[in-house]
Amino acid sequence: MTMRFFATPQDAEAAFYDAIERADLDAMVAIWAEDEEVVCTHPNGERLSGFAAVRESWRQVFSVGPRASVRLSDPVRREGILLALHCVHEHYTVPGEETPRPPVIASNVYVRGAQGWHLLSRHASCAPGAVAADISATLH
Amino acid sequence: MTMRFFATPQDAEAAFYDAIERADLDAMVAIWAEDEEVVCTHPNGERLSGFAAVRESWRQVFSVGPRASVRLSDPVRREGILLALHCVHEHYTVPGEETPRPPVIASNVYVRGAQGWHLLSRHASCAPGAVAADISATLH
Repeated sequence: MTMRFFATPQDAEAAFYDAIERADLDAMVAIWAEDEEVVCTHPNGERLSGFAAVRESWRQVFSVGPRASVRLSDPVRREGILLALHCVHEHYTVPGEETPRPPVIASNVYVRGAQGWHLLSRHASCAPGAVAADISATLH
Repeated sequence: MTMRFFATPQDAEAAFYDAIERADLDAMVAIWAEDEEVVCTHPNGERLSGFAAVRESWRQVFSVGPRASVRLSDPVRREGILLALHCVHEHYTVPGEETPRPPVIASNVYVRGAQGWHLLSRHASCAPGAVAADISATLH
């Protein structure tokens, strides 16, 4: 498994959402800070800690294959020297669904290391009105 | 309204949970980074942006008065020079309730400014099993 180099938090963010749209597990894994204590909370989920647990959760999310496209809105970004916070609303579009889904609220924190910027923490939750019952239902 | 000076993110965190336990709105407001674009997502809530909206939400939460004590567990903390991420599980205890509530998952980001460390972003969600329907039900 090879970490990719991301020169900016924006680069890591773009790769993160690209990996989601393509349901590309290798690409997703390469975005996380492998040497850090990563945490990830999917919508309606528990907090997952550690690289293995986070990786497995995305494997499950992606197991149904690529289905959703995602558009971001309402960014609130604050960047430090070592850490960067990106709060966004994620709007998922699934082919065949006529009613737009409520957005997912995401707070993503990136960390800078020797390999550039990577995702350290993701906290996602459904905006009110969402009825997703599990990870896959939310992201796909 | 006076911002308090917090020398470390830990100091700001301690004051934040103390304000919750005392339902002290002034103390809560003093913890947020007034000059920044703050965001706050309460459990099951929308993302609130801006100081006024965040303040009003805590006014509503505290309107029923002090009721809950809170204990933290499973901290994952990562601190940079300008930003600090604290991920914790919050365990609320309400007098008279016999069944422990599922924890609240919180990702709090603090920012360092001229007035020390303050809360820039809070993202909270209910761990699975929680049935809280609104902010007050979750925190109290």
